[in-house]
Amino acid sequence: MSGRPILVSEVGLRDGLQSIPSIMPTEAKMEWIRAEAAAGVRELEVGSFVPAKLLPQLADTDALVRFARTIPGLTVAVLVPNLRGAQAAVAAGAHKITLPCSVSETHSLRNLRRSHAQILEETRAVAELLRTLPSDRRPHFEASLSTAFGCTLEGPIPPARVAEFAERLMAAGCDEVGLADTSGYADPAAVRHMIRLVRSAVGREALTGIHLHNTRGLGLTNALAALEEDITTFDSSLAGLGGCPFAPGASGNIVTEDLCFMLAAMNVETGIDLPALLRVREILARSLPGESLYGFTPEAGLPLGFPGAAAAARE
Amino acid sequence: MSGRPILVSEVGLRDGLQSIPSIMPTEAKMEWIRAEAAAGVRELEVGSFVPAKLLPQLADTDALVRFARTIPGLTVAVLVPNLRGAQAAVAAGAHKITLPCSVSETHSLRNLRRSHAQILEETRAVAELLRTLPSDRRPHFEASLSTAFGCTLEGPIPPARVAEFAERLMAAGCDEVGLADTSGYADPAAVRHMIRLVRSAVGREALTGIHLHNTRGLGLTNALAALEEDITTFDSSLAGLGGCPFAPGASGNIVTEDLCFMLAAMNVETGIDLPALLRVREILARSLPGESLYGFTPEAGLPLGFPGAAAAARE
Repeated sequence: MSGRPILVSEVGLRDGLQSIPSIMPTEAKMEWIRAEAAAGVRELEVGSFVPAKLLPQLADTDALVRFARTIPGLTVAVLVPNLRGAQAAVAAGAHKITLPCSVSETHSLRNLRRSHAQILEETRAVAELLRTLPSDRRPHFEASLSTAFGCTLEGPIPPARVAEFAERLMAAGCDEVGLADTSGYADPAAVRHMIRLVRSAVGREALTGIHLHNTRGLGLTNALAALEEDITTFDSSLAGLGGCPFAPGASGNIVTEDLCFMLAAMNVETGIDLPALLRVREILARSLPGESLYGFTPEAGLPLGFPGAAAAARE
Repeated sequence: MSGRPILVSEVGLRDGLQSIPSIMPTEAKMEWIRAEAAAGVRELEVGSFVPAKLLPQLADTDALVRFARTIPGLTVAVLVPNLRGAQAAVAAGAHKITLPCSVSETHSLRNLRRSHAQILEETRAVAELLRTLPSDRRPHFEASLSTAFGCTLEGPIPPARVAEFAERLMAAGCDEVGLADTSGYADPAAVRHMIRLVRSAVGREALTGIHLHNTRGLGLTNALAALEEDITTFDSSLAGLGGCPFAPGASGNIVTEDLCFMLAAMNVETGIDLPALLRVREILARSLPGESLYGFTPEAGLPLGFPGAAAAARE
């Protein structure tokens, strides 16, 4: 590992909340954002600029971006499905936008009704929009390589196809690509291979982040492999929100608490206060009654003698 | 990794069953042993020679060893708490015996009512017994370094103490030591460090196995780290039997199905037929009603296009 600081990027407010039926009140989301930022999480994806009729759970994204921007030091990220979403993100003042770009064209057509040619066109349009902005208002633009490790519709995806698509997306004007194991198909060997291959195509600095799901229990092993390949940004969801191992197809993000426990145990610096992070879970428990919360570390507690364990146990 | 074949050692019949209140009928255990061996698992720990009044769940260990020995190619392992247990294991014909040796003396005194001096004395007595046997009846003798990564009573254990204890156990006559994360305190960095340190003390061939729990969700990340350090034997429990992340203190073994999925996905050879292994779980579901079965891969199913996935999905 390079010793570069590791960024845990909380995506529960987007990927978690969009996957559950409950609608979390905006006030509770703000409390979550405030508390997790206070615990030291430096990047949060607070929502997605999709039509509210498609995802009513995320209808308050604009308000959340504007709110989160007031928290010093926090990078405010949002998903944007298209140019229109990017315009909304810019208007709200997001620091980072992520455009989902399925490597599986079948998945792309099914999910966003868009071919690869159309995705590249949209990427160019977003890049064009961003170029017109002054640098202090210009968000960082990531194209996320969804289904990079395989697709529930297409099955395995040849890694060379991922690398080639990454190159085309970079050429279309995004600042960076990210790897996303949308279907929970990745394994540590595949993660290592894919990172090296994509970097050989687009350069090391154009791939710094990974988005992992824990569908088959390998989420953290994949994170470990990525960490050892010098990936520095890891998406995860507090309480594994949105995941359910007992519902085929539904597949949760890796759990922020367990990821942060792993990193802290390995002495990898994230700036996150683990006992404080574990307490943020209470906001979810309170404001999402009936939703399942996941994670091993929160249930087991911190090990005896672990930094902060005594303080956490007293509460 | 060395490319040496990896041995998955199923411990659910011992570590799993001893941790749940249900008593599995001997017939069902035999069905489990038969089916898992048929799926390609080459080593099973079938029980523990402890007094039946302490662990009635394992009272049929003698019968199970004798039964399992009739399965060609299967290594039949048992836990033995002391010399008396070792005598019973030899009489039944076990191929491998494991003596638990807590590195935490507090844990040892509390759990087995035995100081380190007494553990070493017992190790010498077992080694002495084994030396009198002809080589074809002499089981392989492993001393398991329980609580090697920390203890719920003592907290962190200095790795140097683990290495020193390993040396003393080897000097007392065991064939091999094993690392056991009894309390789920390990992390990938600690696993790597500990393996290197213990091997520097006892030699590479005297440490080939690891026993991991998934208490804080890092079980498979620790297995991955151990794999990369050329550990070749991995204990795991089918369906994570005996584990319960929601009961403080109770901490399940890593799940055999998820471990085997990881290894298969990484093209690590184990000789195990994954769809056949996943079917063994049905025996547990049927004969242990009311007990929780864990594991992500069994719930999500194999990825589309994964070897054997189509056959598994048809059933």
